[in-house]
Amino acid sequence: MRILIDMDEVMADAIARFLEWYQRDFGITYTEEQLHGTKLQYIVPEAHRPTVRQYAHQRGFFANLPLIANSQEVIRALNDKHEVYIASAAMEFKYSLEEKHDWLDEYFPFIHWKRRIFCGDKSVLKGDVLIDDHAFNLSVFSGRAIMFSATHNMLETGYERLNNWQEARQLFDLDTP
Amino acid sequence: MRILIDMDEVMADAIARFLEWYQRDFGITYTEEQLHGTKLQYIVPEAHRPTVRQYAHQRGFFANLPLIANSQEVIRALNDKHEVYIASAAMEFKYSLEEKHDWLDEYFPFIHWKRRIFCGDKSVLKGDVLIDDHAFNLSVFSGRAIMFSATHNMLETGYERLNNWQEARQLFDLDTP
Repeated sequence: MRILIDMDEVMADAIARFLEWYQRDFGITYTEEQLHGTKLQYIVPEAHRPTVRQYAHQRGFFANLPLIANSQEVIRALNDKHEVYIASAAMEFKYSLEEKHDWLDEYFPFIHWKRRIFCGDKSVLKGDVLIDDHAFNLSVFSGRAIMFSATHNMLETGYERLNNWQEARQLFDLDTP
Repeated sequence: MRILIDMDEVMADAIARFLEWYQRDFGITYTEEQLHGTKLQYIVPEAHRPTVRQYAHQRGFFANLPLIANSQEVIRALNDKHEVYIASAAMEFKYSLEEKHDWLDEYFPFIHWKRRIFCGDKSVLKGDVLIDDHAFNLSVFSGRAIMFSATHNMLETGYERLNNWQEARQLFDLDTP
């Protein structure tokens, strides 16, 4: 089975970086709870919005992002049993490309470069399963579309869900040898 | 119709850069004719081979590559009529990612970031047509596989061929309004 896995909010915690940079620039600390069903750019004062919108376009934004809980060990187990590809819609953010590649080398060295994809829209990918936090990626995918829960998508309905990586152990039967 | 187009030797002349850097490092000028059916690393003296093999892994190798003849105007016409995606197996060469993105911005700005893909193996791509110079990419593609002629693939048989971009005008019926 070929399983495609998105990076931001699924493997790497980019929201933590948004909160960190916003705190650095404006001295205001939002919590992940305040982002329930939305994104930082929609809840900050309107005058701050252009700055927040530029964050992911800046060099360094995607470097050394924290890991999403249990992603390393569960994706390693998935990779041992299935054909795992990492598929990130990274093309919007030019400087993310090298940083994401480095990040995978550091935290997911077992994912060979042949199994890494940086793309634009995900309609062009062929696989059995896509695990992603965004409805706009899942909706154009031709296989089984699984929404990985993230603060911003908690109000989305209509997709099969993976609430965390621990749940994937059962969903993909990883504990059976 | 969704048409996927490879970059090196199809849009961008990476062989020219190999020859240029080899001349710079060893003072020997090979011609494209000497590369008929092979690649530079296989015809240089064995002692030079490791150096040549490292070229594409170095920063700057993919920057400002010359264009393959007529690629700009024909791909623009293709893009006006069809869903064109650029699909480069760039993941092997980390430093190529940003350079290739910049190169597309400069020479193919009409290809939106949503239609750009940097991948490993191309079995994961879904499309009607793949235009590529390598049999190992064409052989794993599920759609119509078209070999774009390059010095190194001149001895390959068994694929439909596009010998140059002018030929694509007829193949894809681009001159009919």
